[in-house]
Amino acid sequence: MSVKNMIPALEWLPNYKKAWLQGDLSAGLTVGVMLIPQGMAYAMLAGLPPIHGLYAVTVPLILYALLGTSRQLAVGPVAMVSLLTASGISALQPAGPEVYLLFAVTLAFLVGIIQFGMGLFRLGFLVNFLSHPVISGFTSAAAIIIGLSQLKHLLGIKLPNSEHAHEIVISAAQHIGETHWLSLAIGLISIVVIKYARYIHKALPGALLAVVAGILAVWAGGLAEMGVRIVGKVPQGLPGFSLPAFDLGTWQVLIPTALTISLVGFMESFAVAKAIQAKHKNYEVNSNKELVGLGAANIGAAFFQGYPVTGGFSRTAVNDQAGAQTGMASLISSALIVLTLLFLTPLFYNLPNAVLAAVILVAVAGLIDYKEAVKLWRNDRSDFWMLLATFVITLTLGIETGIGAGVVLSLAVVIFRSTRPHVAVLGRVPDSNFYRNVERFKNLELRPDVLVVRFDGPLYFANLNYFKDKMDELSAAKGNALRLIVLNADSISHMDSSAVHALEEWVKDTRKRGIAVSFTSVIGPVRDALNRWGLVDVIGEDHFFMNNQQAVDAFTEKQEANHFQEYVLQAN
Amino acid sequence: MSVKNMIPALEWLPNYKKAWLQGDLSAGLTVGVMLIPQGMAYAMLAGLPPIHGLYAVTVPLILYALLGTSRQLAVGPVAMVSLLTASGISALQPAGPEVYLLFAVTLAFLVGIIQFGMGLFRLGFLVNFLSHPVISGFTSAAAIIIGLSQLKHLLGIKLPNSEHAHEIVISAAQHIGETHWLSLAIGLISIVVIKYARYIHKALPGALLAVVAGILAVWAGGLAEMGVRIVGKVPQGLPGFSLPAFDLGTWQVLIPTALTISLVGFMESFAVAKAIQAKHKNYEVNSNKELVGLGAANIGAAFFQGYPVTGGFSRTAVNDQAGAQTGMASLISSALIVLTLLFLTPLFYNLPNAVLAAVILVAVAGLIDYKEAVKLWRNDRSDFWMLLATFVITLTLGIETGIGAGVVLSLAVVIFRSTRPHVAVLGRVPDSNFYRNVERFKNLELRPDVLVVRFDGPLYFANLNYFKDKMDELSAAKGNALRLIVLNADSISHMDSSAVHALEEWVKDTRKRGIAVSFTSVIGPVRDALNRWGLVDVIGEDHFFMNNQQAVDAFTEKQEANHFQEYVLQAN
Repeated sequence: MSVKNMIPALEWLPNYKKAWLQGDLSAGLTVGVMLIPQGMAYAMLAGLPPIHGLYAVTVPLILYALLGTSRQLAVGPVAMVSLLTASGISALQPAGPEVYLLFAVTLAFLVGIIQFGMGLFRLGFLVNFLSHPVISGFTSAAAIIIGLSQLKHLLGIKLPNSEHAHEIVISAAQHIGETHWLSLAIGLISIVVIKYARYIHKALPGALLAVVAGILAVWAGGLAEMGVRIVGKVPQGLPGFSLPAFDLGTWQVLIPTALTISLVGFMESFAVAKAIQAKHKNYEVNSNKELVGLGAANIGAAFFQGYPVTGGFSRTAVNDQAGAQTGMASLISSALIVLTLLFLTPLFYNLPNAVLAAVILVAVAGLIDYKEAVKLWRNDRSDFWMLLATFVITLTLGIETGIGAGVVLSLAVVIFRSTRPHVAVLGRVPDSNFYRNVERFKNLELRPDVLVVRFDGPLYFANLNYFKDKMDELSAAKGNALRLIVLNADSISHMDSSAVHALEEWVKDTRKRGIAVSFTSVIGPVRDALNRWGLVDVIGEDHFFMNNQQAVDAFTEKQEANHFQEYVLQAN
Repeated sequence: MSVKNMIPALEWLPNYKKAWLQGDLSAGLTVGVMLIPQGMAYAMLAGLPPIHGLYAVTVPLILYALLGTSRQLAVGPVAMVSLLTASGISALQPAGPEVYLLFAVTLAFLVGIIQFGMGLFRLGFLVNFLSHPVISGFTSAAAIIIGLSQLKHLLGIKLPNSEHAHEIVISAAQHIGETHWLSLAIGLISIVVIKYARYIHKALPGALLAVVAGILAVWAGGLAEMGVRIVGKVPQGLPGFSLPAFDLGTWQVLIPTALTISLVGFMESFAVAKAIQAKHKNYEVNSNKELVGLGAANIGAAFFQGYPVTGGFSRTAVNDQAGAQTGMASLISSALIVLTLLFLTPLFYNLPNAVLAAVILVAVAGLIDYKEAVKLWRNDRSDFWMLLATFVITLTLGIETGIGAGVVLSLAVVIFRSTRPHVAVLGRVPDSNFYRNVERFKNLELRPDVLVVRFDGPLYFANLNYFKDKMDELSAAKGNALRLIVLNADSISHMDSSAVHALEEWVKDTRKRGIAVSFTSVIGPVRDALNRWGLVDVIGEDHFFMNNQQAVDAFTEKQEANHFQEYVLQAN
């Protein structure tokens, strides 16, 4: 592996073109301005003081810009990972904010190590096991949980931290009478500003506007004395060095969360990185290098008072639209945050929590995707149930259980489906060599003495009994006239040793009943397996054909020449 | 469900033919004679006093004869289930023999309930998940563990009960100096008698002969005083009524063992039942009814001082060879055991444990199957590793872990394999409509502007990235001349919603690059999915063909008529 291979930035940094600068500068500043409110809001969602959301976009951004393969990906705190951080750490019941922060940087460290390791060991493919319905159901449910977690800031009431939707709803219903109306008003106005500012002018940064307006309102109106909760003192200056806990006990408890964040965070990040790369095509994104880049970013977060980060969907889209050409845009965003930390943090003292809650609510509202559910209900009922199961489990039993159950369920369906593959009886399209499913095509030619069957899937240990039962059923339906079974094998993609044994037995049994067996369109790897096991000799070379018609013709020929009996018993 | 449907015996019992009696009588007596030593030996293996092995073939045999669907299956104690019983109960560290027995009947009760329930809910298919290599590796390892567990009786020394092979071996090595040579001699002679009696006369019951000789030798020679361990006092009479423990705590600990016994026992039993039925064909065996029958037999064992039973391989074979026609044979075996219990048990006082150990050793020696391993090594390397993993895990980490790991590993391989299906580039067999894999056939016609690809497996969430990467790789190999990709879909057995989304994206991307996409031989269920999602419209009806040549011809036609550009962009 060359150095250039390890540090993708070496592809663009040494040859940096002046022409790129305008786009990178514009994108970097735009995303930086977005990052100020979002970073603080997501840190609050993660249960941390808002400043750590800004710390998390200093060193990590630089590391990703150097090691990541995407040139437009905007790394930093995102809603889902922040929620996972909160739920993972709460489970540990940390004693005070210092311990909470220690657990947060430890989590970032573990996520970094896991992602880095997955990248080195090329385990990026693991993310393939998250199916579309599982992601959709999980994301919608997580968005609802995130939204509910902000209710307390929006209503200005006390609610327990929980990742179980029903618990928050019940508790909120009990405390709804204590609503702090001024906080609610600030929150609602902020939502309107954040959501609709861009209709006034495309480049108007709604969230920043809401932040500024919120601060001014609290400062001018003395709203803090009227019970509006504010961010309070925000430390000034760059993040200090921090050390994660090196304590096996803590690690053990955090590792399930770290694994979930590693996978979910990578998945979100990689999906958007791929989508943007597909537009540009002047570079490649590589799943394993992306893992290394994100892993490095998280390790950076761990040592500079940050918390787990990943590539975010919305900021990446903005980065791209604003013209980002290279990782330089991220470096500029990071520089803007550094300047903010150095000079602007005292200004955030009067920022109302309700404004930050509004930032989060607007961000996650877009993640609730009921349209996909409706589409699946219409087009793929099995995947609809998968989405619903993941959604309900995530909402009621928690985030990690939800995604875990989703993955296990969707793999179980894959396995279950493969135990009962589609089986079609084929008939001949008149005057042709084509054979088609008799249940789907009309006017097909069927001979009473010939059964042509296509088995659509690998033949392996878990579907052998289904194969035999189905064959028995189909032969029985043909009755006593049956003299030839043609097994159209073109969609039998694999045969394991159990299948070879069972097939041998089936062929012998069928021939004992006076019925010939032929195979057509057997694909290469299956032919290899049959050869290795000597089954080609048992069946007889001359019982394998390129297509169904050849098999039927050969049989007819033998029958007409009165050689049928030998043909059946061939090689037995 | 009719009564006849629920009680399969009503098919043969009311119409019992005189002609059947001779076979049933001969088989029933032969198996009964086998059951006396085997039942006692297996009970000893299960950690119970030998008499419980005879109790276990009274009521259970009658229940299976009435409710089971096989007419030759010989139900009763078997080696594997006895070992599982011993290992499951030892884990509970029962305080004294009464508690041990209570746990044994409770285990039989739980196995009965589980099997009965699985039968009612038609879960018999679960046994399909045990693949051939897993069963083979597991059985060989279990046979070795069983054999090792009898070392203490054979050598006449004290060894700890363990289901970890290495522990027994180490302990035996430490105590080998204490070997009781007389016991060892009795054991070795018994092994020779049991194994070779049938070479003197086919019908000579070797095990019974060894038992009789052993008893006589101990009685005549006063061997018990010389340190030969004997069975001792065996109670006379029929088993009393027993109640399983109805205690959730006990159940919780026993349930993993009960589940393993239910599945492994059923698997062994069903495999032999099917094999024998395939010979007779005058009745049907049904997996769910078999579960009900075995479940009832186990519940019967629970209430009459037995322990878990199932259909045994060797006794069933003997039953069939001796001419069993119906369940009447089992009723006769049971009657013989009842007579033994009533009148003969005092004779077993002087029976040496070493003889029973010999019965077990001979029975399990045949289960060690290294030939299958050799065959797999030669013919299916992946299945060989599966066998070896199951074998090693069973031997070192225990029986239940072994079979559990085997099932999980073999399903993981199925999943992993389906994430990287076989993909073939096809070329035309000259002057024909056949297309074949270019890596397997020579002299195929390949056009520089056409890529024909066959994807051999379902297209679903976990292999979408592989599909896209592979397509990119194959298109790149074709270079700039490429104008048409034909996706030969006949072995794509299924497409889920994630696949449909990804395929739509891939088709649009490919067309944007100026390359036309056509589909051939799409099977019914996949065509349905594409239709439901509207993808047939996106791709265009006229881009679907019956075979590859039609797709290439249609493309050539458009190209010659200068309609290529519209053809590519069709419906975009």
